[in-house]
Amino acid sequence: MITPETFSDFFAISSINRDSLKSIHQRIDQKTKPPGSLGQLESLAARLALILDAESIQIKHPTLLLFAADHGIADNGISIAPSDVTRQMVMNFLNGGAAINCFCDTHGLAIKIIDAGIKNPLDDTRLINQSLGRGTHDFSKQAAMTNDQAAEGLLLGKKIAETTLQTGVNVLGFGEMGIGNSSAAAAIMAAILNIPADECVGRGTGIDDKVFQKKLQLIEQALRLHADQLDCPLDILTNLGGFEIAQMAGAMLATAASHKVILVDGFIATAAALIAHRLAPQIVDYMVFCHQSNEQGHQRMLNHLGGRALLSLDMRLGEGTGAALALPLLQAAASFYNNMASFEQAQVTPV
Amino acid sequence: MITPETFSDFFAISSINRDSLKSIHQRIDQKTKPPGSLGQLESLAARLALILDAESIQIKHPTLLLFAADHGIADNGISIAPSDVTRQMVMNFLNGGAAINCFCDTHGLAIKIIDAGIKNPLDDTRLINQSLGRGTHDFSKQAAMTNDQAAEGLLLGKKIAETTLQTGVNVLGFGEMGIGNSSAAAAIMAAILNIPADECVGRGTGIDDKVFQKKLQLIEQALRLHADQLDCPLDILTNLGGFEIAQMAGAMLATAASHKVILVDGFIATAAALIAHRLAPQIVDYMVFCHQSNEQGHQRMLNHLGGRALLSLDMRLGEGTGAALALPLLQAAASFYNNMASFEQAQVTPV
Repeated sequence: MITPETFSDFFAISSINRDSLKSIHQRIDQKTKPPGSLGQLESLAARLALILDAESIQIKHPTLLLFAADHGIADNGISIAPSDVTRQMVMNFLNGGAAINCFCDTHGLAIKIIDAGIKNPLDDTRLINQSLGRGTHDFSKQAAMTNDQAAEGLLLGKKIAETTLQTGVNVLGFGEMGIGNSSAAAAIMAAILNIPADECVGRGTGIDDKVFQKKLQLIEQALRLHADQLDCPLDILTNLGGFEIAQMAGAMLATAASHKVILVDGFIATAAALIAHRLAPQIVDYMVFCHQSNEQGHQRMLNHLGGRALLSLDMRLGEGTGAALALPLLQAAASFYNNMASFEQAQVTPV
Repeated sequence: MITPETFSDFFAISSINRDSLKSIHQRIDQKTKPPGSLGQLESLAARLALILDAESIQIKHPTLLLFAADHGIADNGISIAPSDVTRQMVMNFLNGGAAINCFCDTHGLAIKIIDAGIKNPLDDTRLINQSLGRGTHDFSKQAAMTNDQAAEGLLLGKKIAETTLQTGVNVLGFGEMGIGNSSAAAAIMAAILNIPADECVGRGTGIDDKVFQKKLQLIEQALRLHADQLDCPLDILTNLGGFEIAQMAGAMLATAASHKVILVDGFIATAAALIAHRLAPQIVDYMVFCHQSNEQGHQRMLNHLGGRALLSLDMRLGEGTGAALALPLLQAAASFYNNMASFEQAQVTPV
């Protein structure tokens, strides 16, 4: 079983080697542009160069892992849709009809759909079955899952990430689908950041005032119920988490352990990133923050991780949509880093 | 000669037909996502559908027109580089070594480099020669150009836009290069918005405090000098403008007149958009605002035009870089509008 003590055996993440950082910045500053004038793309290029290769940034087979699971908390009617919609949307993903399919097609990401624990399983060979159960328990009444399930979730996430990376992928994005999962994410955020629930709970994909109050009360109730078991991130995952969140956290950790790029996007995926970060803080070196969600609290999560999102388009859909939309910015950063002429090469007077 | 009175003969821009707007929004709302959850991409898709085709948005041969010219005001040493750099950078554009080349290559935009009036002309067949002269006059001492040059600039811009659109292009981006042109753009902004210069002048690509004060003083001096000739946009262009700004304004007007999409990006291109907008306010229907520049004042320009930029990456380079970086978002908007399944098609419970 995974405990915080044995954890390092499973996910050995080394801090990034910063030896080349100075030469990376020099290379960027010698490009034919005023220093700093490409703004966030310059820090993005530096990060990609550090993670992948300071000589030449090659983005290879970018892939989105989309984890779906259901949540017992949804039985309280605090989402805009019933749990059935998780399964329906998984079918939609498999058939290529969802927003994330469109964005992945347009921007050249491969996509893998993973059943991490949906309520009514689908028998479809296109779906990767890593189900931890038929949805979590209602975490306002009991632990969302067992400690073993949380640990297995991390390991299953690790497995799918490693399998994917072994095919030559070096940029992994993470998306999710799960009716009720913004409640789990808000509860995790409150526990990790140690702040009141009302600073974490948001409208999800669009609930009204009344439902919002109910959602907030349930999460406050859950945080009181589990108060003495929220110290370690595995316990937080066990008590408040979701099967897709556990697997995303494990997959993110494995990506960092393999020195590959993690695309972090959305409120729920960032909750998984918070868990992963608490387990291995050096993971942030491998993260690119893609889209700042309209969900209240997401900015604060990003601040906690020391990140700033590339995009801010008022989206609140999840699925990894922000990760897919940010990929062209990574490609642009790689392109100028690799191909843009220096002042010397272009015979331009340096500024 | 073009006067505001005869102007409509040259650029007949009709307001966009909004008859299909309701059905466009219905179509977007029936997609398998909570209403509004794709944020700015939804309004972008609606705009593209209105301009191009409400049945299916097809982005065809997106092209960037990059206009270069020099500015007499630069002789006062208020830029980070001498005027020679305009010519050097044009050579860099032609050789494919600049940031805009990298971004156009990566995101599939064609690029045309236009000499609108650089100081030391280049003899290169890859360069489109539409020079209005060897740089403008110093507008802090006299009119930047003659009224005839301003009018000819608009028409030359119209010509290159029409020539380009006739090849099947339906999205045109606009970029510029011209040492000193952020001074001209700030002066135009002050004249069009009728606000003090100190609310318009910024650091360009990176000047220090002392140079900034000198730049501000020169622009204030220019606004006093030309104060009684800043009522009509052609006079503003004549007294304060730049050759590249005149041609961009004309090209933007022609793009709208042809019912095609205008990608507006950067402080200087937006100054051209302000001129075009004053001449034909309905042009904004055809504009997509790409990147919010780090240049102070750009946000206020966008507010004046009623627009909001898609990206905000702290860039301050110009060249049309923001337009090239925003194109993938247009493609994503088109993709979900065209291809995403409806609740009915995907058999997902509507929310």
